[in-house]
Amino acid sequence: MYVARHLEELRNADEYEILLINKENHFVFQPLLPEVISGTIGLLDVVSPLRRLLPGTILHVREVESVDLAERTITTSTGFHPHAHVVRWDHLVLALGTVTDFRGLRGLPEHAFPFKNLSDALSLRNHLIRALEEAALEIRDRDLRQRLVTFVVAGGGFSGVEVVAELNDFVRHIATLYKTIDRSEIKVVLLHGQGRILPEMDEKLALFAQRILTERGVDVRLEARLAAATGNEALLADGTRIPCKTLVSTVPASAHPLVDSLALPKTKNGRLAVGPTMAVQDTTHVWALGDCAAVPAPDGGLSPPTAQHATRQARLVAENIVADLRGQAPKTFAFKGLGKMGSLGRRSAVAEVFGIKIYGFLAWFVWRTIYLFKMPGWGRRLKVAVSWTLDLFLPPELVQVPLGGSLGVTREHFEPGQEVFHQGDIGDRVYIVLSGRAEVLHEGGSARQSIAILGRGECFGEMALLHSTTRNATVQCVEAMDVLSLPKKEFLLLAANLPDLQSSFEKLSAERSAGTKAPTRGAES
Amino acid sequence: MYVARHLEELRNADEYEILLINKENHFVFQPLLPEVISGTIGLLDVVSPLRRLLPGTILHVREVESVDLAERTITTSTGFHPHAHVVRWDHLVLALGTVTDFRGLRGLPEHAFPFKNLSDALSLRNHLIRALEEAALEIRDRDLRQRLVTFVVAGGGFSGVEVVAELNDFVRHIATLYKTIDRSEIKVVLLHGQGRILPEMDEKLALFAQRILTERGVDVRLEARLAAATGNEALLADGTRIPCKTLVSTVPASAHPLVDSLALPKTKNGRLAVGPTMAVQDTTHVWALGDCAAVPAPDGGLSPPTAQHATRQARLVAENIVADLRGQAPKTFAFKGLGKMGSLGRRSAVAEVFGIKIYGFLAWFVWRTIYLFKMPGWGRRLKVAVSWTLDLFLPPELVQVPLGGSLGVTREHFEPGQEVFHQGDIGDRVYIVLSGRAEVLHEGGSARQSIAILGRGECFGEMALLHSTTRNATVQCVEAMDVLSLPKKEFLLLAANLPDLQSSFEKLSAERSAGTKAPTRGAES
Repeated sequence: MYVARHLEELRNADEYEILLINKENHFVFQPLLPEVISGTIGLLDVVSPLRRLLPGTILHVREVESVDLAERTITTSTGFHPHAHVVRWDHLVLALGTVTDFRGLRGLPEHAFPFKNLSDALSLRNHLIRALEEAALEIRDRDLRQRLVTFVVAGGGFSGVEVVAELNDFVRHIATLYKTIDRSEIKVVLLHGQGRILPEMDEKLALFAQRILTERGVDVRLEARLAAATGNEALLADGTRIPCKTLVSTVPASAHPLVDSLALPKTKNGRLAVGPTMAVQDTTHVWALGDCAAVPAPDGGLSPPTAQHATRQARLVAENIVADLRGQAPKTFAFKGLGKMGSLGRRSAVAEVFGIKIYGFLAWFVWRTIYLFKMPGWGRRLKVAVSWTLDLFLPPELVQVPLGGSLGVTREHFEPGQEVFHQGDIGDRVYIVLSGRAEVLHEGGSARQSIAILGRGECFGEMALLHSTTRNATVQCVEAMDVLSLPKKEFLLLAANLPDLQSSFEKLSAERSAGTKAPTRGAES
Repeated sequence: MYVARHLEELRNADEYEILLINKENHFVFQPLLPEVISGTIGLLDVVSPLRRLLPGTILHVREVESVDLAERTITTSTGFHPHAHVVRWDHLVLALGTVTDFRGLRGLPEHAFPFKNLSDALSLRNHLIRALEEAALEIRDRDLRQRLVTFVVAGGGFSGVEVVAELNDFVRHIATLYKTIDRSEIKVVLLHGQGRILPEMDEKLALFAQRILTERGVDVRLEARLAAATGNEALLADGTRIPCKTLVSTVPASAHPLVDSLALPKTKNGRLAVGPTMAVQDTTHVWALGDCAAVPAPDGGLSPPTAQHATRQARLVAENIVADLRGQAPKTFAFKGLGKMGSLGRRSAVAEVFGIKIYGFLAWFVWRTIYLFKMPGWGRRLKVAVSWTLDLFLPPELVQVPLGGSLGVTREHFEPGQEVFHQGDIGDRVYIVLSGRAEVLHEGGSARQSIAILGRGECFGEMALLHSTTRNATVQCVEAMDVLSLPKKEFLLLAANLPDLQSSFEKLSAERSAGTKAPTRGAES
């Protein structure tokens, strides 16, 4: 967005065409994203429509499927009609950032909330409200209730600290509206792998931040590393288990798959190796910036992956492209950084600006003012300023944004000892074991009888769905297990129409009822 | 919500408990819903959190699964954990409204947008922006492009008129940001089955509304009844076909399924028959109001299904429940209505208030003022007033709200002559025929060769997915057809894991390649 903006400014008449491909039609102003959790600012004010920001740029709202470096083309994904779109380029700028990557962390892809874009923020917000609504209802099951009011955030960098601060303020504030929830039941935990949070900052400021968070009720756990997750708990590397229904992880970021797929020079951690002019090494027409690029800093190291550096890199890329088109010499990147800031929620922040360290209300005021003026577009700034003013005397929002609904086919992860469902529960999904093992148990009075072991490729849970009854056995994980699950509605739709599916399930179901397949297929569910 | 509010007001100390079950945690202020389309007011300001409105009521955010009238219990749907929740009641108030019901209208359930709740409004808004984004890109396919910029609204009552007015203002205004879209290409059509729109209103006002809409570019088609829809067009009863990618229908409303399921006296159109005290006939502890009830009006007819009547009915139900608990005599419903209002978009409306007919700017001002004061809650009123003020000089919002993403299993409807996909398209879904028939055509140079006919229960489109190639034949509908379709990602996930599915598709695919099953199974896809 910033490259296109500068290219628009530098352009003489129709000197060149600027084409921006982005999968969303808006630009996300990342620093204010955590405020979406509490709804302090209008949910859409944290993003700006690209068409308004870039009146002189052609915008393609599409995903990039592939880049052909030899032919100098880009193929984008399909839209309403499935035909391919191919665009030609003379100069290519790669500003793809990084992607949240939970792979390799057991259960995180299935059960942890990432926090990177607007839909992550909206999903988290909805989930928090839903968890409190459910906790308010859950009078009988004390255990489930405690999980519903426990919120865990992993990662004590800027992003994790800002998220946990907003989340903590929000849930503690709105909990007062729930008569059956005692505020003291609420647990908010911040996990951080190192000895102190905010490693990017001066120690004194980091300790201040730690103290403020603790005072506001956040349980800051240092040297605590998240190792795995299930739908019911967060598992730490030292074996600690924190029962919870909400886990946010801001930690892992890895190279964008498109960057991965390009035959261009990269550093060990998968970032594109660029020279001091921001051109990707060994190329003349390919440029890279931001988190997807390893940009040499003037002091010999690498530019840190922050917005202030990325926006300066964008300006240089635009200038160097224009220099190239005009036959002038390129410039080199020399920005050193102005400072660092992190919000701690209501009326507090920490900041290092031009070498001066400030904290508390003053830092918070500086933080708000700087970001307000850094937001692109005056209309947006006005709306945010108004929202911030109203927020001084209005209570926080409590409305869930309806986000579609159909979850479709989902993956879930279970750890040993965890129940998938309990005998007597209502049958709402069918499961297929992708890996790991589970035991089918029949609960008769005080005794539990093992009926079968389920392994890879086996299905369970279909009987309660086909016959609309409650679960007639308990299924418990015995060896870390990944399953694919399908909601009742979609299962019945598919079963009624997919070739052989219905008959294969009915056969299975009949065998299980008769007990003939119990040992291998798992008895029932 | 209004019954609970009045019950809170009337309650002495702990005289009784009030429990409200609602599937959302917010109350939707219907009259302002169309403003969500243009984003004039904050997307969440049109709804109010129930917990704030009803501090003295127990709120269960759940769907009602069943009502047991004999046992006086309600069973609600499952939450995070699939166990059932059962609640007891002494007095039951049914205020379920109606549901959008497109059944019986070919293709409408699959392809028409309803407009009843916040998620309908958000989905429509996102779809409008997406359609314009796609139209801006679609330079080659003129036909698809025209469909993308044609917007059809069916139903010329209050709801349809307000929706078409907002939609028309919004798309015509934001289209100016799309360089490749000529504003004259945009078509907005209002279909109405009778001789004039707004049949609820005085003729003079209705004709004024019709003139304003026409002046602003809406093609108002009278005596035009929507009969069917596909993903590509709206089909009228007289055989006219309007090519479009956006169809909103505000027409059909039918009884709530829960009302259907109750063994209580009903009128012919499925509304609950209540007596003058609002108690459902033949019962003493069951009450009904709003659109789900047939309430006798003082003049001998029935109360019209409008908000002003429903809110008065709510007050009476609350009073009569309290009277019953206190052993007093119930009162009867005697409200006659104050007037009617309908917005026509920017700075225009029509209204009949206390028998006086007004239109244009004055009516619009009255409309805004009345609804502002009818909104529940001062915070909300303030926010809406601020948004309306900012809207006077800020341009409309253009940001899509990210609404989940996974579409999962979807149903689609096709009419004869329509192509499901074309040879050479990218394979993105697999299809299962639920009813109707399609022809598989191979396009070789200028000739089209029919290869096979597909009918009920047959699958097509799997080959391009299994082998990641483009479609190697065209599939065209020959007899009105309903299909179930599954996106590539979910198909591959299921195919890789569901028993027998992969092998059955591979067998089918191999047979089709070899041509052995061509006549019955349909050649390819």
